[in-house]
Amino acid sequence: MTPDITLGNHIIIDYYNCQTTALSNPEEIEQIIRKAAELMQATVITGKFHHFSPLGVSGVLVISESHITIHTWPEHHYCAIDIFYCGALKIEEGLNYLKEALQSNNSSQKEFKRGLIEEKTLK
Amino acid sequence: MTPDITLGNHIIIDYYNCQTTALSNPEEIEQIIRKAAELMQATVITGKFHHFSPLGVSGVLVISESHITIHTWPEHHYCAIDIFYCGALKIEEGLNYLKEALQSNNSSQKEFKRGLIEEKTLK
Repeated sequence: MTPDITLGNHIIIDYYNCQTTALSNPEEIEQIIRKAAELMQATVITGKFHHFSPLGVSGVLVISESHITIHTWPEHHYCAIDIFYCGALKIEEGLNYLKEALQSNNSSQKEFKRGLIEEKTLK
Repeated sequence: MTPDITLGNHIIIDYYNCQTTALSNPEEIEQIIRKAAELMQATVITGKFHHFSPLGVSGVLVISESHITIHTWPEHHYCAIDIFYCGALKIEEGLNYLKEALQSNNSSQKEFKRGLIEEKTLK
């Protein structure tokens, strides 16, 4: 039997009932996402955070381990976060902080393996 | 009964057996992703494409409709693409082009709804 390996992990989280006013503030969202990346011990390469008129922020951090993205809908007290990573990150530390920083009392999280590679092709 | 709406759609695609040499070239990957965005009729806000040493590219496009990301593993002829969008995009046109441009004969696609909001909260 040839075991398989996966190249990446992908976590997608929907944060509902966010009580923070940060959802409409690109500077605060950038601070939150960069802090989460730091807590995960991710290596940040570059980031872009954009403020939509009249509402909402889209942000991405490219990290050595892949990416973190956020999209906010302040009018619905909702934001969507994706964390795509390879290698070992302290994900739980980042996720605990995000839930607290976003002041969400209701979230939905899924995790997927990305890039299923047959181990024999690695030799 | 109160019907719900969703704020976004999220498509994640794993492209295997990519025969293109573009996977190790950040300029070519950027061209491919921007062309896919154009075909989908997405509005590009900004983009970042990064070349890893010795191999691989990570790229993100922030679009008005949310984001498109790509991560490549040329050594495995594999790349991972995410398309997060709200509103109406011509997704199929973009996906058809991506499969052709990446020269992949084996791909795996999933789609999720993001941000389930009760319609009553929209009033």
